Amino acid sequence: MDSSTTAQRRVFARIDERLEADILRLQAFVRQPSISAENHGIRECAALIREYFEALGCNPAEIVETGGHPVVYGEQWVGAPRTLLIYLMYDTQPVSGEAWSVPPLDGRIVQQQPFGRCLVARGAKNSKGPLRAFLNAVEAIQEVTGTLPVNLLLVAEGEEELGSPNLPRFVEHYSDRLAQADAALHPYALQEPDGRVLIWPGTKGLLYVEIEASGELWGRGPRAYDIHASQKAIVDNPAWRLIAALSTVVAADGNSVTVDGFYDNVRLPTEAEEAAVVALTETFSIEPFKQLWQVDTFLDEETTLSLLRRYFFAPTLNLDGIRGGYIGPGSKTVLPHKATAKLDARLVPDQGRDEILDKLRRHLDERGYGDLDVRLMGGGEWSQTPPDALIVQAAVAGLRDLGVQPEVWPRNVGFFPAYLFNRAPLNLPFCAAGLGHGGRAHSPDEYFVLDGNDRVVGLAECEKSYAAMLFQFAGGAQ
Amino acid sequence: MDSSTTAQRRVFARIDERLEADILRLQAFVRQPSISAENHGIRECAALIREYFEALGCNPAEIVETGGHPVVYGEQWVGAPRTLLIYLMYDTQPVSGEAWSVPPLDGRIVQQQPFGRCLVARGAKNSKGPLRAFLNAVEAIQEVTGTLPVNLLLVAEGEEELGSPNLPRFVEHYSDRLAQADAALHPYALQEPDGRVLIWPGTKGLLYVEIEASGELWGRGPRAYDIHASQKAIVDNPAWRLIAALSTVVAADGNSVTVDGFYDNVRLPTEAEEAAVVALTETFSIEPFKQLWQVDTFLDEETTLSLLRRYFFAPTLNLDGIRGGYIGPGSKTVLPHKATAKLDARLVPDQGRDEILDKLRRHLDERGYGDLDVRLMGGGEWSQTPPDALIVQAAVAGLRDLGVQPEVWPRNVGFFPAYLFNRAPLNLPFCAAGLGHGGRAHSPDEYFVLDGNDRVVGLAECEKSYAAMLFQFAGGAQ
Repeated sequence: MDSSTTAQRRVFARIDERLEADILRLQAFVRQPSISAENHGIRECAALIREYFEALGCNPAEIVETGGHPVVYGEQWVGAPRTLLIYLMYDTQPVSGEAWSVPPLDGRIVQQQPFGRCLVARGAKNSKGPLRAFLNAVEAIQEVTGTLPVNLLLVAEGEEELGSPNLPRFVEHYSDRLAQADAALHPYALQEPDGRVLIWPGTKGLLYVEIEASGELWGRGPRAYDIHASQKAIVDNPAWRLIAALSTVVAADGNSVTVDGFYDNVRLPTEAEEAAVVALTETFSIEPFKQLWQVDTFLDEETTLSLLRRYFFAPTLNLDGIRGGYIGPGSKTVLPHKATAKLDARLVPDQGRDEILDKLRRHLDERGYGDLDVRLMGGGEWSQTPPDALIVQAAVAGLRDLGVQPEVWPRNVGFFPAYLFNRAPLNLPFCAAGLGHGGRAHSPDEYFVLDGNDRVVGLAECEKSYAAMLFQFAGGAQ
Repeated sequence: MDSSTTAQRRVFARIDERLEADILRLQAFVRQPSISAENHGIRECAALIREYFEALGCNPAEIVETGGHPVVYGEQWVGAPRTLLIYLMYDTQPVSGEAWSVPPLDGRIVQQQPFGRCLVARGAKNSKGPLRAFLNAVEAIQEVTGTLPVNLLLVAEGEEELGSPNLPRFVEHYSDRLAQADAALHPYALQEPDGRVLIWPGTKGLLYVEIEASGELWGRGPRAYDIHASQKAIVDNPAWRLIAALSTVVAADGNSVTVDGFYDNVRLPTEAEEAAVVALTETFSIEPFKQLWQVDTFLDEETTLSLLRRYFFAPTLNLDGIRGGYIGPGSKTVLPHKATAKLDARLVPDQGRDEILDKLRRHLDERGYGDLDVRLMGGGEWSQTPPDALIVQAAVAGLRDLGVQPEVWPRNVGFFPAYLFNRAPLNLPFCAAGLGHGGRAHSPDEYFVLDGNDRVVGLAECEKSYAAMLFQFAGGAQ
């Protein structure tokens, strides 16, 4: 039998050979729509992933009903001492209303400087590219070694972009199977445009709500439909009511959250978290970040440390969208019968999603806005794994095998439902890691780099990083 | 020759004979779309109206370019001592996004209790039904008398729902022709569901604006597109900025306007206006109004007088629509790069449209919102004609000929650009008047009553009222 190092070298070579075929696999995958918010292509995508799992030899490889979009679950037992749960997501954000330079579901390959060939498609980066790349890596290991270095439990959900409303039910129902894992990994593409590579041993929590003011619930204003604006002199306006209520939940700068008690349970960063942020100031660069997001000025950007502290440790309340009345072209004078806002809060330890939901509800009630409808749309709790956990160290070591020294961030500022695996009852160490670069997640012209340049790697190195992490997790000291 | 009274009686009989044919004429007219905000069917509708004018024998009957949607202008000189300018509008509100029970452009006749047959269509009431009804009345007079009792100058504009941005240019260009008129009339359908009939010798003024906050103009927040909401910790949100700015222009109740100096030039009602409101309390009934607008509670409804004072004399600032970020179904976490609100202000003497626009701009500037884009979308000044003017008295007398005792309101709470004829330089006495009932203007299932019942009249009496007002204006004491 190969030594692990030899096997890994041969797997890397095999991945290089497979590259053009693997690119086609990514293209085929992003061409299958899976827009969870619009229930577009979800079932077809789940069936496709089950085929993928079956092709890897998973048994079972099954579509698990959850009451919403299904989870696809696959087990691959190879008799290895260690077992890794792989968290995957197959759904994407919508594309409607976005101005793309290519059709977002065509799987177009675009020469995009300075990266060379890129896949430009919805889901290219978040997260169909990395999902298919991981499966490619597993295939390559199997082709070379005939087996895998670890047992795999594959969990692919279809509601991540909805805040994973039904994943808790799946985890509960499958807890005995999932508890067989020693740790959990989310294989992602965490290389920045300047070449830095991140590891996320935690995530912020997320609360997503809709808040609606309506004449019907208020008992004032038009009950049933938008009416002629000339009636404003004697008719209350639910859209103004929503504005007034929203103006109480953040300060005028839109940054300090003024929901009563919002910051109560924000704990101070641990020494390890502080140290991680201080270490990051050595390598973190603001300019590429500004380019990526097309932002001229960041908050607290006086020093890199002040910026990063805010970035990782500050909980937020964001206005994601607002709609009411006539929003078409030109003029239409109406007095709206309702108006609706979408908000998300990003939460840090020890804030709780339901705690903040309750506080928001109470905050509005105490200001006389008891009639506003606050609808929970999804989200979940923060997660946190210590940097010395085996899965984090395996990710670090796997990346070093490829000549990369990763930055272990305190946590991901985005959300994915790592807490369902990381916190009670499963309590699995969890991290997100992987080479590869993409951008514009949730935005037009989302992309994933296929070729790469002298700073960021392409698809082949992404796949190699996943393979290396599996080898390292199998061989690392417990 | 007929005496005026005999002629009028014969015209009334002719209108009764024409009724079913006249209903078909209304149907045909509303089937021609003319949605000004979406430039849908406007040119075709203008051509149709020119055909209508030609069929009446107008010379000229012409489509007049204004830089926007054209005005259709027709003159009918019969050698009468008096000349009346007839202000008409041929454009309508949009229908997109509205839930109609019938296709809004089909010209459906619906049995609608308690009114009998109604035309249910966009524009049925506002204002294609009344426009075609007026032309029907003119035709009927011509059929019976071979001429008309007054000379007519017909002005039909296609941008009323946009705030008549180009009508001033037409009025200026045609001022010599328009100055030949002794007065101006807007033939409308001003019967309420309870049977009361209104005359409007004035209108409130209107200011319509869009206010936009954007990362591009602000220099903070995302410049180019909506970005991932997880960046909120370090990125400003232009949508929050719009909320904060909007929360400064009205009080928390959404009713008191807090734009600096907004009320400065509101003059006290004249004795005649106060008297008109006090007189109205005798006949005005709140309940049908509440039913019409589907509103449970009005402002200042403690007494009819307090309600009516507010209704006629209070200027307002309304939020017509607001849009930003993701507004589709489900969740999408984005940080919007811009957000836009549409607002309208309803102005009373002696407020000025540009005065209030300037004050709004200054109000925002002084609070640090100089980056917000405030775009003038239309509107115009208030108008006011004394109740003893000949055109108002002719309207009263014409309605009395049909057994109706009208209520002369202080003014219309809505807006139409009467000021262009009523104020300098033309200074024409102007009123809006006419029998007929319709409802849900600017709302789904807009309707115009064809049959009528024991309270409200149908199309035939509407047309008779227009004929009677022309006879009365011709014969009334100067």
